Amino acid sequence: MPPVLVVGSVAYDSVQTPYGTVEEVLGGSATYFSVAASFFTKVCLVACVGRDFRRQDLQVLERHNVDLEGLEIVEGHTFRWRGKYGHDLNDAQTLDTQLNVFANFSPKIPHRYREISHIFLANIDPLIQRKVLAQVKQPVLIACDTMNYWIEGHFESLLETLKRVNILIVNDAETRQLAQEPNLVRAARRILDWGPKALVVKRGEFGALMFQKDAAGHGLSIFGAPAFPLESIFDPTGAGDSFAGGFMGYLAGLGRTDTQAIRQAIIFGTVIASFNVEQFSLERLKNLTFTEIGMRYRQLREMTSFEDIADGAGL
Amino acid sequence: MPPVLVVGSVAYDSVQTPYGTVEEVLGGSATYFSVAASFFTKVCLVACVGRDFRRQDLQVLERHNVDLEGLEIVEGHTFRWRGKYGHDLNDAQTLDTQLNVFANFSPKIPHRYREISHIFLANIDPLIQRKVLAQVKQPVLIACDTMNYWIEGHFESLLETLKRVNILIVNDAETRQLAQEPNLVRAARRILDWGPKALVVKRGEFGALMFQKDAAGHGLSIFGAPAFPLESIFDPTGAGDSFAGGFMGYLAGLGRTDTQAIRQAIIFGTVIASFNVEQFSLERLKNLTFTEIGMRYRQLREMTSFEDIADGAGL
Repeated sequence: MPPVLVVGSVAYDSVQTPYGTVEEVLGGSATYFSVAASFFTKVCLVACVGRDFRRQDLQVLERHNVDLEGLEIVEGHTFRWRGKYGHDLNDAQTLDTQLNVFANFSPKIPHRYREISHIFLANIDPLIQRKVLAQVKQPVLIACDTMNYWIEGHFESLLETLKRVNILIVNDAETRQLAQEPNLVRAARRILDWGPKALVVKRGEFGALMFQKDAAGHGLSIFGAPAFPLESIFDPTGAGDSFAGGFMGYLAGLGRTDTQAIRQAIIFGTVIASFNVEQFSLERLKNLTFTEIGMRYRQLREMTSFEDIADGAGL
Repeated sequence: MPPVLVVGSVAYDSVQTPYGTVEEVLGGSATYFSVAASFFTKVCLVACVGRDFRRQDLQVLERHNVDLEGLEIVEGHTFRWRGKYGHDLNDAQTLDTQLNVFANFSPKIPHRYREISHIFLANIDPLIQRKVLAQVKQPVLIACDTMNYWIEGHFESLLETLKRVNILIVNDAETRQLAQEPNLVRAARRILDWGPKALVVKRGEFGALMFQKDAAGHGLSIFGAPAFPLESIFDPTGAGDSFAGGFMGYLAGLGRTDTQAIRQAIIFGTVIASFNVEQFSLERLKNLTFTEIGMRYRQLREMTSFEDIADGAGL
């Protein structure tokens, strides 16, 4: 099964939501991505942590069969993030960020990883994203994330990275900000002109949209998926990265890039993210089973069908 | 083809959006509903206007085969609404409301209309909604809308109406406010305990969700549909009412209430609403064709499928 390579952060998070508070729990974009993707394929992780990184947290990754040769353990402290969510749970308020050892992160891709075909560049400096790409030999599918900080301060560098990326995975606000265009469809069209073959827009409780140029290159092919409706959302931290992990893990494992595969990958990303937000940190993903994933996938299929369906309750 | 009965407002709107301004154009919940529903079935309209109501606006309704026996023309001025939309186009800011003849509206259902099986109670006083229901003889499907004003000030009366309603069609914020519950799934569960067999939640650019109790009455059956992605939205006025019109018109015309029919009705509602917002007032609906409706319906089917699909562009 073709593995997926992820480069991003491994962190300790302190998070406050209306449902509780946790201190210094395992987090980071690459961590959420890795555990999410591990349900579908082998994951090779490139990141760095400090000497304070806990043995038990390494074991979380090991138990999910994540290859840790690329995880550098260096002198200093692990990246810390402190954030808070209000009642609507849509926007995190960052209270404190301590980059620590992540400030000097310069990813070195182990030789064994350089042939990997599926690559996810989590939300890091676009220059570092390109440094990763300079080290891989036969990429087939490169996806990346970014955020307002890079869009505002490193726009030209980000454009350079986008030229080399196949799939950009960002949220609603980032899409509009990147394209400087309030209409999402027009924003998507502009971004697809910059390089990516597909744009995946994460919209939290409103689901996800994917835009691709159609076969002729004129029109847009659009896919819309609802979020999995949940009665209790505990902590949205990591939703976007676990979505990306489910998405890329499925595509790498399957080894296909046709439209059907990519759409199903969005559904699997949606499913994994829906589980992730049910508990703090990686608590829910740690205990997630294939049966549960399959059940929500089928529920989403049922939830979006309006032709040739068996009748349910009716009115 | 079984007709649909609608009771609501016929108004003159003055609207300002980032794309332009119109003064005293045809509007009102029952107007948008009627023209939208007219693509699927015969519509019988109950409303009142003043002597200032223009002949050309009556003709818009007549050309869409709307039965106007229930449209009272009384001494005084037609209902006026003045509103404004900002750049995100999601929330209307009401600048002025003049109820005029609508202030004393007490709907009298013509005898010919009293056998109609499909009824839509647009956003009016819940007491008046019940007065309508007292005059109909064999309702099969009753749907209604409401708004924050009635939820805040006439809550008990609204609950009385909901006991007699089969489908409640409201927006996201109204759902949460009505149930006093920020989580949408839990809010839906609560509202379905009050009487309606189905709750349709309109979410603007994020599409629609429908909640029904499942056959066993324990769980929820949920349907999620994206909005039709548009590159230019001109004026959101009437989106909700044209959605309801497409939805109820399709169900009345089809004469079915099974789950598949209701889900398809949501798609047709979505389609009609997507056309409506492309121009001011009813300008777009006036010129809408069955071919265009069918095309967007099929596009939405294509846009939401992720199994057994023909391959498009891929990556």
